[in-house]
Amino acid sequence: MSVVVQKYGGSSVADAEGIKRVARRIVDARKNDNQVVVVVSAMGDTTDELIDLAEQVSPMPAGREFDMLLTAGERIAMALLAMAIKNLGHEAQSFTGSQAGVITDSVHNKARIIDVTPGRIRESLEAGNIAIVAGFQGVSADSKDITTLGRGGSDTTAVALAAALDAEVCEIYTDVDGIFTADPRVVKKATKIDWISFEDMLELAASGSKVLLHRCVEYARRYNIPIHVRSSFSGLPGTWVSNEKPELQGGKQVEHAIISGVAHDVSAAQVTVRGVPDKPQATAKLFRALADAHLSVDMVDVKASPVCPDLADISFLVPRDELSQALRALKGVRSSVSFTWLGHDTEIAKLSLVGMGVRTTPGIAATFIEALSAEGVDVHLVTSSGINIEAVVPQHQVDIAVRAVHTCFGLDRSDGEAKVYAGTGR
Amino acid sequence: MSVVVQKYGGSSVADAEGIKRVARRIVDARKNDNQVVVVVSAMGDTTDELIDLAEQVSPMPAGREFDMLLTAGERIAMALLAMAIKNLGHEAQSFTGSQAGVITDSVHNKARIIDVTPGRIRESLEAGNIAIVAGFQGVSADSKDITTLGRGGSDTTAVALAAALDAEVCEIYTDVDGIFTADPRVVKKATKIDWISFEDMLELAASGSKVLLHRCVEYARRYNIPIHVRSSFSGLPGTWVSNEKPELQGGKQVEHAIISGVAHDVSAAQVTVRGVPDKPQATAKLFRALADAHLSVDMVDVKASPVCPDLADISFLVPRDELSQALRALKGVRSSVSFTWLGHDTEIAKLSLVGMGVRTTPGIAATFIEALSAEGVDVHLVTSSGINIEAVVPQHQVDIAVRAVHTCFGLDRSDGEAKVYAGTGR
Repeated sequence: MSVVVQKYGGSSVADAEGIKRVARRIVDARKNDNQVVVVVSAMGDTTDELIDLAEQVSPMPAGREFDMLLTAGERIAMALLAMAIKNLGHEAQSFTGSQAGVITDSVHNKARIIDVTPGRIRESLEAGNIAIVAGFQGVSADSKDITTLGRGGSDTTAVALAAALDAEVCEIYTDVDGIFTADPRVVKKATKIDWISFEDMLELAASGSKVLLHRCVEYARRYNIPIHVRSSFSGLPGTWVSNEKPELQGGKQVEHAIISGVAHDVSAAQVTVRGVPDKPQATAKLFRALADAHLSVDMVDVKASPVCPDLADISFLVPRDELSQALRALKGVRSSVSFTWLGHDTEIAKLSLVGMGVRTTPGIAATFIEALSAEGVDVHLVTSSGINIEAVVPQHQVDIAVRAVHTCFGLDRSDGEAKVYAGTGR
Repeated sequence: MSVVVQKYGGSSVADAEGIKRVARRIVDARKNDNQVVVVVSAMGDTTDELIDLAEQVSPMPAGREFDMLLTAGERIAMALLAMAIKNLGHEAQSFTGSQAGVITDSVHNKARIIDVTPGRIRESLEAGNIAIVAGFQGVSADSKDITTLGRGGSDTTAVALAAALDAEVCEIYTDVDGIFTADPRVVKKATKIDWISFEDMLELAASGSKVLLHRCVEYARRYNIPIHVRSSFSGLPGTWVSNEKPELQGGKQVEHAIISGVAHDVSAAQVTVRGVPDKPQATAKLFRALADAHLSVDMVDVKASPVCPDLADISFLVPRDELSQALRALKGVRSSVSFTWLGHDTEIAKLSLVGMGVRTTPGIAATFIEALSAEGVDVHLVTSSGINIEAVVPQHQVDIAVRAVHTCFGLDRSDGEAKVYAGTGR
């Protein structure tokens, strides 16, 4: 009997009706002779409501207690889902992250999974149950405290469990139909992708596509777990993300795409540090300060200062909600690094073209920049690495930029417009 | 340094303001050089809202999942309370029942505590923290599943932790000023009791006084933990429940009361089984059936049938919300016991007079019944055991009955009327 892991997001279980609908879908999967493990997020707006309560009692909620608070949301959803399944005549048991053996490090609010020991889940499956597991949470190896995995944590829980249970597939149910070649809200002619490689999906995720987050795809690639992203509201096949292209329903067998898609991201801010002594130690000290604050940076650009050849200007992107932390970390090393100027810009967007073709097709950067210039887009910065090429553009020009690149690289669908919203959804 | 355990009910932490108010009170206790352990219930109506959700997805929510669901409520409250305390500059850590070492049997929805191993709480206290513990919940010794302790479970958690930590006192904070000689909603001249013995309190609790539940008092008596029931809204001393009368503030030192109070209970139903073969085996089989369904009975009365000397009529009280279970259990043994008639009455009330004097004062039953008769109360059934005397009366006459007995036994206060609602509160 093969194991299937399914994950349902908060919008799929937003209310009692949603929970009952999802329960029926789970029971259908069980009837196909599979052992079914379901990972579930908190219902609808529960997490936001809990965050709101926390802010009412404390302006800066502490990590450990904040995690304890937030994990209540998944606990509610999973117990209700198990009840709804039992009400359909099937056996189900729910498990917290800790009970399911999701072991993490101790970084509260964005812990990383370091091991999964799903002994209780296996026992429950072998006893004939459908196992329901709380997404987004685990227990720290050191302190035995409850932790949360941060944004997209439930997807990561699902993939990690799929790996530990040697599952055939990890199905990620969401409110969109799959992964698209661009955000259909911006590009009406965006196409649903039937299959995408782990590598291209990693790049899309790193570049702002929010249907699957980077860490989840990375985990799936490491353990070679095929992901099937699909809608919990329709029965349609979605997008497969895997190493090898599977035999797809309908027999549509196209070659590996040259270009997988165009992603954009308006959630980043650009930080610029000027007048840094042009020595590796100084640059290292800057980035060490950011790493110590658990901040990650993107699109790093180091160039000689136009005003003094012994100094360098460094710029990079950080998630906008971590900007103030980043600035604080940099100010903390200002005297020891002795840079001259620190600035930031939140009115920017990142645009990424992703696909194997970026590496193999000559002149692609030129075509990319020409397409943007032709539309009058003011390109701040371009970097290219492996299978992507990225640009920082002014935020107010991002829609024009995405459409220009999507058209230029032949991604527009020929059969009309995409009917559903999808792509960079929640 | 002595340990103080404080318990706050749902009405004390109903919203963010309530949580902040309670946090200040806890910090005050900590400043008095105590190690403070706080047991907290779910916020306000949270539990009812969760029950409502459960009923929307399943008409008969299952025990294990229902417990998993309900325990989310305390988890939210405890995390918020810990945050609010930290915001006042004190260190606090919250713990689930499982983390606090509350080990129970496996009877979901009304588990019993079988052991408390508060190693993590001790460590947390020794590290200088205020420890916040989720009330009402534990973890089963056998299956490691989350359990809940049923009604009044948070009080029991508090007393059990106080015992395990050798605490000086267990303070139960509630929305009433203490234990009263009768329900002040019914008897305006009811008096707040400064001190009451465990024995009398056990009887009052068994008789319908809802401020403290029986199992909690029983636990406190077994481990000799003084309980101080008091209001979380005022700073006034409340009612001490203990073995030995303590030195009370204000030096009010009256003798052990002859009569502690009058309790009443409108939550019971009377079950009558007629035509039971008058043999111990038959009666035993009836009560075994009820015990197997985890149902407890009260005020058992067995008498010879007026129609046939070889048969007996048996009546007893059960909690009204367990009536249908009780009737189902009895119907299940109808053929093997061969009784002739099964009936029930939900329009009854139980009235209890409690105090050492019941055992030691001659003629007390006569006075009790005369007081009721003088007011025209239709007494169905009277039993007396040890320190109480109880009567079943029609529900519509219960207020008259309580007032008659309260006056007759000299419990009315002479200095006017009780100003606050208290007594049989929630």
